[in-house]
Amino acid sequence: MSSSRGFASDNSATVHPAVLAAIARANVGHAFGYGHDEYTQQVEARFTELFGADARAFFVFNGTGANVLCLRAACRPWEGVICAQTAHLNVDECGAPEAIAGVKLLTVAAKDGKLTPDQVERMLVRIGDEHVSQPRVISISQCTELGTVYTRGEVLELAELAHANGMLLHMDGARLSNAAAALGMSFVEITTGAGVDALSFGGTKNGLLGAEAVVLLNPRLAQGFEYLRKQTLQLASKMRFLAAQFDALLTDDLWLRCATQANSMAAQLAKAVGDLPNLTVTRPVQTNAVFATLPTRVTEELQAEFPFYVWDEGIGEVRWMCSWDTTEDDVDDFSSAIRALLLD
Amino acid sequence: MSSSRGFASDNSATVHPAVLAAIARANVGHAFGYGHDEYTQQVEARFTELFGADARAFFVFNGTGANVLCLRAACRPWEGVICAQTAHLNVDECGAPEAIAGVKLLTVAAKDGKLTPDQVERMLVRIGDEHVSQPRVISISQCTELGTVYTRGEVLELAELAHANGMLLHMDGARLSNAAAALGMSFVEITTGAGVDALSFGGTKNGLLGAEAVVLLNPRLAQGFEYLRKQTLQLASKMRFLAAQFDALLTDDLWLRCATQANSMAAQLAKAVGDLPNLTVTRPVQTNAVFATLPTRVTEELQAEFPFYVWDEGIGEVRWMCSWDTTEDDVDDFSSAIRALLLD
Amino acid sequence: MSSSRGFASDNSATVHPAVLAAIARANVGHAFGYGHDEYTQQVEARFTELFGADARAFFVFNGTGANVLCLRAACRPWEGVICAQTAHLNVDECGAPEAIAGVKLLTVAAKDGKLTPDQVERMLVRIGDEHVSQPRVISISQCTELGTVYTRGEVLELAELAHANGMLLHMDGARLSNAAAALGMSFVEITTGAGVDALSFGGTKNGLLGAEAVVLLNPRLAQGFEYLRKQTLQLASKMRFLAAQFDALLTDDLWLRCATQANSMAAQLAKAVGDLPNLTVTRPVQTNAVFATLPTRVTEELQAEFPFYVWDEGIGEVRWMCSWDTTEDDVDDFSSAIRALLLD
Amino acid sequence: MSSSRGFASDNSATVHPAVLAAIARANVGHAFGYGHDEYTQQVEARFTELFGADARAFFVFNGTGANVLCLRAACRPWEGVICAQTAHLNVDECGAPEAIAGVKLLTVAAKDGKLTPDQVERMLVRIGDEHVSQPRVISISQCTELGTVYTRGEVLELAELAHANGMLLHMDGARLSNAAAALGMSFVEITTGAGVDALSFGGTKNGLLGAEAVVLLNPRLAQGFEYLRKQTLQLASKMRFLAAQFDALLTDDLWLRCATQANSMAAQLAKAVGDLPNLTVTRPVQTNAVFATLPTRVTEELQAEFPFYVWDEGIGEVRWMCSWDTTEDDVDDFSSAIRALLLD
Repeated sequence: MSSSRGFASDNSATVHPAVLAAIARANVGHAFGYGHDEYTQQVEARFTELFGADARAFFVFNGTGANVLCLRAACRPWEGVICAQTAHLNVDECGAPEAIAGVKLLTVAAKDGKLTPDQVERMLVRIGDEHVSQPRVISISQCTELGTVYTRGEVLELAELAHANGMLLHMDGARLSNAAAALGMSFVEITTGAGVDALSFGGTKNGLLGAEAVVLLNPRLAQGFEYLRKQTLQLASKMRFLAAQFDALLTDDLWLRCATQANSMAAQLAKAVGDLPNLTVTRPVQTNAVFATLPTRVTEELQAEFPFYVWDEGIGEVRWMCSWDTTEDDVDDFSSAIRALLLD
Repeated sequence: MSSSRGFASDNSATVHPAVLAAIARANVGHAFGYGHDEYTQQVEARFTELFGADARAFFVFNGTGANVLCLRAACRPWEGVICAQTAHLNVDECGAPEAIAGVKLLTVAAKDGKLTPDQVERMLVRIGDEHVSQPRVISISQCTELGTVYTRGEVLELAELAHANGMLLHMDGARLSNAAAALGMSFVEITTGAGVDALSFGGTKNGLLGAEAVVLLNPRLAQGFEYLRKQTLQLASKMRFLAAQFDALLTDDLWLRCATQANSMAAQLAKAVGDLPNLTVTRPVQTNAVFATLPTRVTEELQAEFPFYVWDEGIGEVRWMCSWDTTEDDVDDFSSAIRALLLD
Repeated sequence: MSSSRGFASDNSATVHPAVLAAIARANVGHAFGYGHDEYTQQVEARFTELFGADARAFFVFNGTGANVLCLRAACRPWEGVICAQTAHLNVDECGAPEAIAGVKLLTVAAKDGKLTPDQVERMLVRIGDEHVSQPRVISISQCTELGTVYTRGEVLELAELAHANGMLLHMDGARLSNAAAALGMSFVEITTGAGVDALSFGGTKNGLLGAEAVVLLNPRLAQGFEYLRKQTLQLASKMRFLAAQFDALLTDDLWLRCATQANSMAAQLAKAVGDLPNLTVTRPVQTNAVFATLPTRVTEELQAEFPFYVWDEGIGEVRWMCSWDTTEDDVDDFSSAIRALLLD
Repeated sequence: MSSSRGFASDNSATVHPAVLAAIARANVGHAFGYGHDEYTQQVEARFTELFGADARAFFVFNGTGANVLCLRAACRPWEGVICAQTAHLNVDECGAPEAIAGVKLLTVAAKDGKLTPDQVERMLVRIGDEHVSQPRVISISQCTELGTVYTRGEVLELAELAHANGMLLHMDGARLSNAAAALGMSFVEITTGAGVDALSFGGTKNGLLGAEAVVLLNPRLAQGFEYLRKQTLQLASKMRFLAAQFDALLTDDLWLRCATQANSMAAQLAKAVGDLPNLTVTRPVQTNAVFATLPTRVTEELQAEFPFYVWDEGIGEVRWMCSWDTTEDDVDDFSSAIRALLLD
């Protein structure tokens, strides 16, 4: 069944046993579908505890679904979304924001995948001009697709800029746990407390089987959201089994343990290979990703044994993702193989 | 955790233990995401065995997603879909066919939820008239939302009508297993062999945790379908866990055992209450649903103990769904309660 | 250049000379595009005079554009529109309401094309149920596609029903002038004064070259409408020439003179043929359309000389439209030809 | 009525008298609507004469409509469009390509608004990857929004690149006449003969009242296009009056005379001001636009008398558009005013 252990994606990892156990525990008796069962409502309530009294959580199937839903909730048809060129929204959702949410993405070439207030301000042009899609949302990824992390202050600054201009701040938190672990902060500190209006909260990349949550921190966005979730094909019938996954994730800080392990393994990997000849770590290693350039020949030999992806063929840059189930042995095996090939 | 056992929906049921076991077995080692792992491909191949050499299966999250994807694959922007007024497409998908697939539904008031060739032919008007959405798909539900079943011959006749007019036949098979069990036929006989072009194959209502499949029997529809699935928010990252559910469902005829149990319990329930005074079974009981009218007072007292839905308030019609985990004791308890209230 | 004079459509008619004259008068010097010129703003202001202080007019290209814009302004993605099955929206816009506005049409089989409050109330079901498109707009055509007219009281009753249920009333007034002429009422009486929220105001069928207006009577709908008009492909660059057409239409009651002529000619035609054998006038002749059944052979012979359309092949019903430029001679020639064939 | 003569846009200009005369000539007798009249068909046929036997013309209302229709005809839902960042599609259509056509724009920072094959090739990445919108169309503007012109060879090279990669070439020819005049070439040479598949052919900016044409040179794109035009809100009922405008434009080379005049006036203006101190002409003046930087104070004083737009506030760049009705006196008056202010 299993492929070789590798560094392809945190999606390649297994489900944490505590998650399967929670699913099994939820598998007793009948429950109303579509989230109208008490158990789901209890788990939803835990998000309010974690994110603040105004927060409302809606469980959905996947990250693209969560992002598209946030944009549909926030934007009228003529409104657009400022995001980094490297944003998942822009490069990994097969045009869903445009085709399904109908929004225009207003992209910025952002260093290390992070938007700055200066960059955003330069996009605030032709406001009030009927010929132009009007900026409504700033969307940032926390952590970014390049493994970098916004500080709480940086998020806050973007939120203030957004709000000062009648806009909203969306956070694609597919890997929010990794960011929180890296920052040593709670969810509320780096979301609600930093001015975020709508959050795509990731679970699948951090040990779940398949579940994400839209967490709306700005209560105005919640109006009618149930309909949007249904229409946007993200309403699960046996919802209790999505709820169970989050129940596990939020119990005994499973999210933090999983994210910390993934982050640590990335740091360890970066350290193990960082001083090798002909290998350059190309991005700050702040969470669970290591980006590096190395000779194509070496990349290809490595891939034969350890699955991972080339990120940018043009410059020979690869991406190595660690996950909650990456072990020190995995890192040792992999870094030894790299070392052997580079010192060959 | 559990609510009272009842007859609200086959979505209220538990997951079959064999399904959880298959998920656990798949939870070993790393696997490429998005279905690019060998295990998923093996399970996909089993659909080809079951549905014919041209069949291609795509696992998705839910039934609305499967239906919308089939319509997006089949229709150009100006094409419409002929379906029964009672079709799930029309009354339970919150406008997703229109808003997400952009298609117009051309609805027919259909007895027992079943389209007839005569009815469809009457919809084939203004063909070639640029002012009118052109019929492209006939969509039928097998079994229907009213629990009735199309015979193989009836499906074939609609397929021939469709093909003779340059149209395609879509089958919403959210409960296809219940129909196959009722007909005593294989999947291939009532789909591929009856001229169906695109199938939404249901799993969740028949014991899975949460998984459906689009099965394209007309190979032309498969072109580019991977992109459609991704863009339409239905591509699971940890796909192996959807595959595992179907692995279980297709092993040792689990689908048939589950569907047969649900169907039998509905028959038993109908029989137990069919001769009671002030209660009329309103639809043919062919699969796992019993529709009946009874006094509102009785309905309300029953609902206090046994969850189920009112189908048509106007005439006091209720729907009782049986599921794979409905037991003879469940039916006895429920029918006794009905009997007691009606004979009170 | 010209085809035979006939009764195919009020779209087949010529442009009123006063309209061409107004266009020529506007063709002097430079003017800012897109309606940002003084002249356009003056003509827009005349709509406010006519429809009330809150009214805002937006000139657009065609009736389908006007209707789709009204629905886009009124509906959130999960909201639907109650209309008659015979509504232009439903049967003559090639699925634009669904594909472009993304709304679901909730259709009613309406006698003579007119919705009644009873019918609408029966559509107000499953309110608050996330699985169902929620009714947001009642859309009526004034006059209807069958040439019938709502009384002011009937409109008011539908408006009150709409507002009592948090809905809006849209009026497709492609032939509003014909209705106003028939009722002997002003525009404001049968729109603003009857509770209409959004109006598609027709010009092209009543002597213009090609111009319609969206008139928003509920000011909340106007928010952002400029963007919607642009994005929905209905913003003219040389707007002054749309404005000029309305300038002419609203000057010296040209609209009323044109509509009265068309209505009178229809009445005259109905009278001239109403007592012929084998011919039945099938709808009340209240505006500029005559519907009738007659033998197919006669229809076909007539069509060879006088263009007109068959409305319902099944029952041999035809539609004869009169227009502002239909003359008594036209009616005499046509009715004589009908008479000759029927008495043959 | 008129505002001051100026250099705001070729949309600010009048309608050429020959166009109004053609409209008046067409205003005789009845004609079938929606283009089903002989006259319209004759004018459509002239496009086939001009653009080649496979060419099919469809008259529409405006340029955004023409562009969006071309993209809808060319792209399946998951396909994208490579264009310059400065393309009208990207910056002046209020998100219509995304919201109405559902396509993703893949933008390139292009010098002088012109795409090069190298730039396009760098966009051809992740082909076959289901997570990414797949490039299907290269869209170029001829002339560009910056007044520059592609040579025939440059167009051909992009067409070959498109076709070699299974893509299509779309040309936004809102000002195609200006480009043809500048190149001294016929329409067919720079479109059909240069490999263009779909053309938005502009009329309104070159002396028409309001009419554009989609000209499909690749016949496969024409399949079903009538429905698309209707559904996309671009089907005129009194079509003969759009046809009449093109009749005039294509008669006695009116298009060429108008475009040549506009181009000449721009050249004359550039020459008149090109050597002034504190004024820099910033783009090659190849058609009817002059871009220049000059002191903000001067810009503001000029705008008080002569309408024109600031193009880029950041650098004080303005745009001066000449049109078919710009006269030598207009240019003399304007350049004298500029000169006076700059030499003040």
